[in-house]
This record gives sequence, C-alpha cells and structure tokens, in this order.
Amino acid sequence: MLGAPLATAAYPDDLRTLVEAYLERLRFSSEPATEGLETAMRYSLLAGGKRIRPVLALATARAIGREASSVLPFAAALELIHTYSLIHDDLPAMDDDDLRRGRPTSHRVYGEDVAILAGDGLYAEAFRHVLTAQRDDPRHVLAAVAELAAATGVDGMVGGQYIDVASAGTSLRQLHELKTGRLIGASVEGVLLLSGRDATAFGAFASELGVLFQIVDDILDVTGTDEDLGKTHGSDERLGKRTYVSQFGLEEARTMA
Amino acid sequence: MLGAPLATAAYPDDLRTLVEAYLERLRFSSEPATEGLETAMRYSLLAGGKRIRPVLALATARAIGREASSVLPFAAALELIHTYSLIHDDLPAMDDDDLRRGRPTSHRVYGEDVAILAGDGLYAEAFRHVLTAQRDDPRHVLAAVAELAAATGVDGMVGGQYIDVASAGTSLRQLHELKTGRLIGASVEGVLLLSGRDATAFGAFASELGVLFQIVDDILDVTGTDEDLGKTHGSDERLGKRTYVSQFGLEEARTMA
Repeated sequence: MLGAPLATAAYPDDLRTLVEAYLERLRFSSEPATEGLETAMRYSLLAGGKRIRPVLALATARAIGREASSVLPFAAALELIHTYSLIHDDLPAMDDDDLRRGRPTSHRVYGEDVAILAGDGLYAEAFRHVLTAQRDDPRHVLAAVAELAAATGVDGMVGGQYIDVASAGTSLRQLHELKTGRLIGASVEGVLLLSGRDATAFGAFASELGVLFQIVDDILDVTGTDEDLGKTHGSDERLGKRTYVSQFGLEEARTMA
Repeated sequence: MLGAPLATAAYPDDLRTLVEAYLERLRFSSEPATEGLETAMRYSLLAGGKRIRPVLALATARAIGREASSVLPFAAALELIHTYSLIHDDLPAMDDDDLRRGRPTSHRVYGEDVAILAGDGLYAEAFRHVLTAQRDDPRHVLAAVAELAAATGVDGMVGGQYIDVASAGTSLRQLHELKTGRLIGASVEGVLLLSGRDATAFGAFASELGVLFQIVDDILDVTGTDEDLGKTHGSDERLGKRTYVSQFGLEEARTMA
C-alpha cells in the first residue's frame, strides 16, 4: 500500500511518509468511554510536525543496513513522547501557549484537565506500543526502552523542562542538552541498542545534534513567522526565556549554528 | 541492616518496611540543577502512604515462593506511578485538592508547573528503574513492564481519570476498574509475568480487588476524618463526584464492601 509514494519520494521525505502513515494508524482506546481522550491525543499527534526524531531513528536503521520500517514502533514511541512534552510545555502553568503546529494548543481546545491527561496518555501509550510491537531480541528492546525512559526523566527531558521553568542556575547548553538533546540522542542510540550495537560512541554526536537543533529553533523564534513556525513567534521573548538569541544576539547565534 | 525490624514485624508490615526502606534509598537526579525537582518528587513519594500496590506485589512474590525482595524494583515502580497519579489528580485543573497524605499537595508547595513535572518525572523514573534494576528473564521483564504501561494508559489509569473529569457516560464500576483497578491488578499480574507464569486467570480477581478498594475509599471519604485520610474529607461531595456513596447511599455501599 505504501509502495507508490515511497518509490517516488526522495530521502528523507520517504521516511517521513512512512512515519506519518504509521502514526495515522495507531489507536489507543478500546472502550467508547475513552474515545474523547483518544481524539485529544490524535489531535496533537497528527498535527503534522517535522517528525525529526522518528525520521532520525529510521535513517539510523537504514544506515546500519536494517529495513527502516523494522524500527517503526520505536520511532512512533519517540513521536508520541515528543508530542506529550509539547502538550505539557504549552499548558497555562508552563509556557501558556495558544498555538502549536499551526493549530490551537490542546488545552485551548479540550481544556486543561484533558490536555494534561492527553500528555500522560501519550507517554503511557508510547511505552505500551514499543514494548509490545517492537520485534527485536528482548534484551535489546529492554536496553532501548530503558534509554527512552532515561532520556525523558530527571536526567533528560523532564529535568531540562524543570531547569527552564525554575530558572535553575545552569548553562543554556545544559538546559538544552537535557530538554531537547537527550531525546534526539535517544532517536539514534535507541536504534543502535535495538540492533545490539554499542551506542556509547554516539552519545557525544547526538548531544551536539540536539544543541544545534535548539540554536536553530531559537533563531527561528525571532526571525520566523507564525505560519512558518506553526506556533506564536516571539513567545520566547514574551516569556523572558533564556535563548541563544537573548544570550548571544542574533548574529552570534547564527554563527554558532 | 534491615534484619532487625523484619525479624519482629508481622506480615504485611514487614513487607511495608521493606518497601519504605527501598523507596527512601531511590535517587533520581545526577545533576545539581535538577535537585529541586528530585526534592519535589521525594516530598510526595515519601509522605507515608499505605503502599498497597508494592505490598501486594511483594506478597504475590512470597505466595509463589519467591524472595519478596527480588521484586522490589517492580514494586517501587508501582508506587512511583501511583504517586505521580495522585500529584496530577490533585492539580487545580483536576480535583484542586490542598491536602494529600496528611500534607499540603505538591502544587501548593512547589507551584503548579513543578508539580506537573514532578508527576511526569516520577512516571519516567518508574520505567527507568524497573527496566534497569529488575533482574529476571528479559522476556518476562518486557511482559511485566508492558502490563504496567497498559494499566496506566488509555485503557487503564489515565483513561479512568479521563472518564472521571469528562463525566463520560459510563458506569461507576467501569470508571474505577480503569482508574484504580488496573494498576492494583498489575501489582499482582506483573509479578506473575516477571516469574514467567500465566497471569490471565488473575485478571478477574485483581479487578474485583480494585473495585472493593474503591468502595471502601468512597465510604471513608464520607465517614473518615482529615487525619485518618491524610486528605480533605468530603472532597468527593464538594466536587460533585459520582461515588458509591452518592450513587447508592452510605448503608448500601457498606453492604457492597
């Protein structure tokens, strides 16, 4: 069924097409009473992000000679987790954002209570999906999913978001290594672990990639339009956030990227 | 070190002592910048709950001839997850509770943003801990952790909480089977899965246990004192919640339990 677009699309669009089709097919609720929650989860999941993390995972699989589609469950888990983090980051108690991926944020559409639960639900379903659908040696699946948990815990994404909201005394680089870098890193490392390969050498590379991504993101928050970004441009400045642009100026940040 | 209290305490207090000592030793942050987040997580985790879920897990291990302490990583994950769910349930956007386990709720002490992240962090660290510390056949660990994810996702705890806040049309029994019953069930089933045993026969038993627990909890919300409960008594009624007492009356609910 996926043959036609794949045959014509060029890398990495062919991988993004694979990811989109896979995410579109995912279902979470098996009872009518929770269909509304699934609707809220799919609203944010299928809003058409760049799919950087799952595409990185698929590209890593291809680079080491695996069929890209063989890591789709792991790749999907990455995007579910990323979407959960966006929903929680946008909440009134956090960044209080109205726009995300070009559409009203989850809490603007479904209310704050359902938005919190949609995030919680996406995180749970990410683990459920990769643990039940990823077909590799169980030891390797365990290692990859443990990396996913570590990358999103106190020493990863959630810790980075804490540093952001609490303005805990630390460098901007450390903030982004945790908040963005660890999960981007896990997109590469997780596929190596799934394949029984040593992933330690890629830690430094993945961390650099995550920081580079954040510098570009900070620049776009200043120079981009709402339409380009799919979110309210200038929201970093409005919130008085420390960014590469606020800290080093636009020109210097451009040089860093 | 644990020998003395264990030798004298009677079941199930000996198991609860094991759990408390184990939870007390858990650390989550390895960087100074995230120590404040760890403090918030430990504040809620170590507030002295009844530890029903981890004690059930340890009792199940003992019942099938395993050393109770051999399932402590899984048992701890259950309590981390339960604590995360309490923090999120208490948030202003949910039940807006001021008191939990006899102390001010997380968001009253640390603010709403940090409380959301403390919950998110506990959930991540639950998975990280059980995936890295539970020593059993990797296939069995995978099955048990997948059950943990399923019990806390859309078909479990988060789905039940959604039904609660959205007042989705369904029976009280279904609400509690998802919100409370599935994780209590996973406390028993997870240990059977870790041990390579067929857990399907225990599904019905575990589900009944969860519902029984909820009926007793609803009765105590009406008849208990704040001190007994460790939370504000009568908060179900204040929130206009459907409970076994509001639906069937106190006497009938007592008969059901």
